[in-house]
Amino acid sequence: MSPTDRLSSQIEFLVETEKLKGVLRRTSPINAERRENTAEHSWTLALMAIVLAEHSNQPLDLLRVLRMLLVHDLVEIDAGDTFCYDTADAGSKAERETRAAERIFGLLPEAQANEFRQLWQEFDERASAEAAFANALDRLMPLLQNTHNGGGSWLEFGVTSEQAFDRNRHIGEGSTVLWNYAQTLLAKAQDLNFFSRANSFS
Amino acid sequence: MSPTDRLSSQIEFLVETEKLKGVLRRTSPINAERRENTAEHSWTLALMAIVLAEHSNQPLDLLRVLRMLLVHDLVEIDAGDTFCYDTADAGSKAERETRAAERIFGLLPEAQANEFRQLWQEFDERASAEAAFANALDRLMPLLQNTHNGGGSWLEFGVTSEQAFDRNRHIGEGSTVLWNYAQTLLAKAQDLNFFSRANSFS
Repeated sequence: MSPTDRLSSQIEFLVETEKLKGVLRRTSPINAERRENTAEHSWTLALMAIVLAEHSNQPLDLLRVLRMLLVHDLVEIDAGDTFCYDTADAGSKAERETRAAERIFGLLPEAQANEFRQLWQEFDERASAEAAFANALDRLMPLLQNTHNGGGSWLEFGVTSEQAFDRNRHIGEGSTVLWNYAQTLLAKAQDLNFFSRANSFS
Repeated sequence: MSPTDRLSSQIEFLVETEKLKGVLRRTSPINAERRENTAEHSWTLALMAIVLAEHSNQPLDLLRVLRMLLVHDLVEIDAGDTFCYDTADAGSKAERETRAAERIFGLLPEAQANEFRQLWQEFDERASAEAAFANALDRLMPLLQNTHNGGGSWLEFGVTSEQAFDRNRHIGEGSTVLWNYAQTLLAKAQDLNFFSRANSFS
């Protein structure tokens, strides 16, 4: 592949990724009335990584964490955002996202496509220190947003405290410090009645 | 400062940075009707950096480029987005942004605040290889957006081809490859009459 062809493929990929700005999540930015899109969410996670890296349980390759966070949600361009408490939708999620990864990362020159697909898989599998920390941030931010937004998506979609606790305990795999902090947020949210008693998704 | 106090400062900073999602730029995401906000713009630039790094004129510390891009526009939370072709507004920009940097980065623990403020200054001064490349991306993306969006902010705000050429030639300081590509976009935009003949800002 010539340098010009490489650049054309890369630009085509970048133009395609603009669509992530139109994928809406269930959460809202703090103190905003609108839903947030997955592009701005990805920026927040990358910013969190450079601010909070010192709290990781294990030493980190921070560049790898950032690369992972910047691409981890690109599959949502085709697969959409699956609400994390929606177990019915979760079944088809893996298949939809794998197809999306093939198509979207496949726009890049081959070696780069493989590299980006691997970053996405690594994030999903939570196996490395970098993936564990990146996932911790991905869970912590909605927690911060919902507690600042009067319950946010928890209240709107009838999430129980057991569900929130169960989903967020993975934070501890990446950072004990952040999981301790997250538990104070969850306790506060419970005091403020931000959780539902019945589970709408089961 | 205790670890708990450090974390509190860092969380306070991150909550504050959510406001960047409400700062609107003059450009729109490709094929979108709305203005884009500075948070999603920052994500795009970081993504561009990991995709296009090979085209830098000089070897790069990619982690430094990413850290720079993630924080380079945070001052807009206080100072607002200054349209790059608006010379009247540009005069007060430096002062407004310096005050903003003091306040916003000042929310972080001291050493981290200094480090982030330095990244922001380095980007602005375009002195290092990393800053030159980061600035090249910051200029290239609106070019891509405007050419895909039927003229976009060029047409809407009466930008001349001389102004666009003059602003974007800095791309060459970071990447000759990207500047060559940018010139094909500018020529195409000229053919399509995306530029004004008179300068609305002078």
